[in-house]
Amino acid sequence: MATPSGEILVPNKQVILKHYVDDRSPQESDMELKVTTINLKAPSGSGLILLKNLYLSCDPYMRLRMKLMEGSYFESYQPGTVLSGFGVSKVVDSDHPDYKTGDLVWGITFWEEYSQIASPSSLFKIEDTSIPLSYYTGILGMPGMTAYVGFYDICSPKKGERVFVSAASGAVGQLVGQFAKLAGCYVVGSAGSSEKVALLKNKFGFDEAFNYKEEENLNAALKRCFPEGIDIYFENVGGKMLDAVLPNMRDCGRIAACGMISQYNLKEPEGVHNLIYVVMKQIRLEGFIVINHFHKHPEFLHMVMGPIKDGKVTYVEDIAEGLENAPAALVALFSGRNFGKQLVRVSSD
Amino acid sequence: MATPSGEILVPNKQVILKHYVDDRSPQESDMELKVTTINLKAPSGSGLILLKNLYLSCDPYMRLRMKLMEGSYFESYQPGTVLSGFGVSKVVDSDHPDYKTGDLVWGITFWEEYSQIASPSSLFKIEDTSIPLSYYTGILGMPGMTAYVGFYDICSPKKGERVFVSAASGAVGQLVGQFAKLAGCYVVGSAGSSEKVALLKNKFGFDEAFNYKEEENLNAALKRCFPEGIDIYFENVGGKMLDAVLPNMRDCGRIAACGMISQYNLKEPEGVHNLIYVVMKQIRLEGFIVINHFHKHPEFLHMVMGPIKDGKVTYVEDIAEGLENAPAALVALFSGRNFGKQLVRVSSD
Repeated sequence: MATPSGEILVPNKQVILKHYVDDRSPQESDMELKVTTINLKAPSGSGLILLKNLYLSCDPYMRLRMKLMEGSYFESYQPGTVLSGFGVSKVVDSDHPDYKTGDLVWGITFWEEYSQIASPSSLFKIEDTSIPLSYYTGILGMPGMTAYVGFYDICSPKKGERVFVSAASGAVGQLVGQFAKLAGCYVVGSAGSSEKVALLKNKFGFDEAFNYKEEENLNAALKRCFPEGIDIYFENVGGKMLDAVLPNMRDCGRIAACGMISQYNLKEPEGVHNLIYVVMKQIRLEGFIVINHFHKHPEFLHMVMGPIKDGKVTYVEDIAEGLENAPAALVALFSGRNFGKQLVRVSSD
Repeated sequence: MATPSGEILVPNKQVILKHYVDDRSPQESDMELKVTTINLKAPSGSGLILLKNLYLSCDPYMRLRMKLMEGSYFESYQPGTVLSGFGVSKVVDSDHPDYKTGDLVWGITFWEEYSQIASPSSLFKIEDTSIPLSYYTGILGMPGMTAYVGFYDICSPKKGERVFVSAASGAVGQLVGQFAKLAGCYVVGSAGSSEKVALLKNKFGFDEAFNYKEEENLNAALKRCFPEGIDIYFENVGGKMLDAVLPNMRDCGRIAACGMISQYNLKEPEGVHNLIYVVMKQIRLEGFIVINHFHKHPEFLHMVMGPIKDGKVTYVEDIAEGLENAPAALVALFSGRNFGKQLVRVSSD
């Protein structure tokens, strides 16, 4: 609806965080849907960009933003306001010289139908639309970059090395496993259901996989899969799994610490008891925040586009339909109900 | 006493480990003195080297060799046999082409008056005798190399960075602190008595120091000393101290994991709960075993000899007299009774 001042006001559905969620699993009821109004016209001189959000990404780090945490890299969400996160969007109006109506972008947006962006420093233009747009929330976006930076830069893999990936069927893990195979490594993944284990072995080409929920003894499971030990561990879960991995590492092993999803809902994180092996096995454990490596995105696209188009790298998505289902989709990550990369389709055009 | 076959048999006092020591502090009574006989003549064709041990080094890693441990880098001692460790020795006879009678060496020897060495790959010749020979068990030997490799190679210090050292008055810590000052860093150390704290500030030039036993809250102590956080942590103790350090690290901080002495006597090591900060602060935690870096010893001597002779780097030793007192000296490390680098003088010539 255009107003006399040239505004185009439309209703805008949003997902609002109601309150901080500290030491329990987040629930759908911690969020609420709200309808506000947005002006889809970027006023002249404002520099604003107006986006229509097409896909929103559900990512584990968002859990950390739902609580207040000392020294956290991630800014906490403000209760009563709309969530933000990665997404794929279309520019519907722009007063910014670098963006024009119709441009497709991926990057940081908000959990709502339309978003107004004042500073596009976290937006990246989508040039190649020959693959599904939703992939820019996953394999071609932040999770893809996470697998790329964590595996290649942090872990420096060599052909023949033994790689273990936890949360291996998730947005990042499924790619780490496939990258490890491309690099000539032996790779084993852990996941939380027999369907996910089958996916790892049959679709992603993992050499071995196990359901961590069905293993009485994680140490024994790792010894079974890695009789000669682990060179590289891609750490997505933390806690008990990290404790079981440490004594099974080989000398001079590398651990890329990408996330520790098993710990995010706990009041006090589990203790990790086996850190002496960091000394004894000369392990390098290194954390990273992928957005500080986004300048490598062009080189990553160059590396990954070929294998995707050739079918040598594949990607499994779990797509929730509609913003109404976004809170449930986000919550599902923390119980492992998602099957592959979890995202939300807000609109198809 | 020379025998008809040319043997020179002499009595040889030894320190024997009586049994494995698992989950408690080692006691003097876990070791015993025993007198055996040794032939000080290296038979022709044997390639043997006979050493008279002058100084023996008491080092925390020796505690780990007193127990059986899965996947340990360090070979366990054999109950009923003589301990081994670093020392300074004089060659009393040699059938090895690279060693001759009268040579002074440092490296791996045994806890006894005389030792027979079949393979000298862990012995290094002492060329410069203008500084006390005992320094080759400390500042010029393994602990010196540990401080050098851990601080410079693993931590890559930059001028103005903020450095924290635990067990800071010990064999390694006192050097890390002084190296940090040479590198233009701000450095704080923790130790276990007010005398040690005074030593850190008054003798070694630490900017600040605290007695960890008198701090109710290690996190608060670190915040007081590092209001802007820690760039580099030289980890000697593990457990609660590591847990307190992690949230106080700055982005892209480095932790050299040299040892975790607070954990060696425990049945189950303390849990470390704050590893999520490795991710959130992009921390690199790296363990190392100094003997794998011994090829850098010449470059280390080149770097450190000048500052020692100029009095810019100093070293405090705690010397026990006589092999009889060696078990007590070793045990003292684990209650922190030593004041500076703990060693044993077996003989002065």
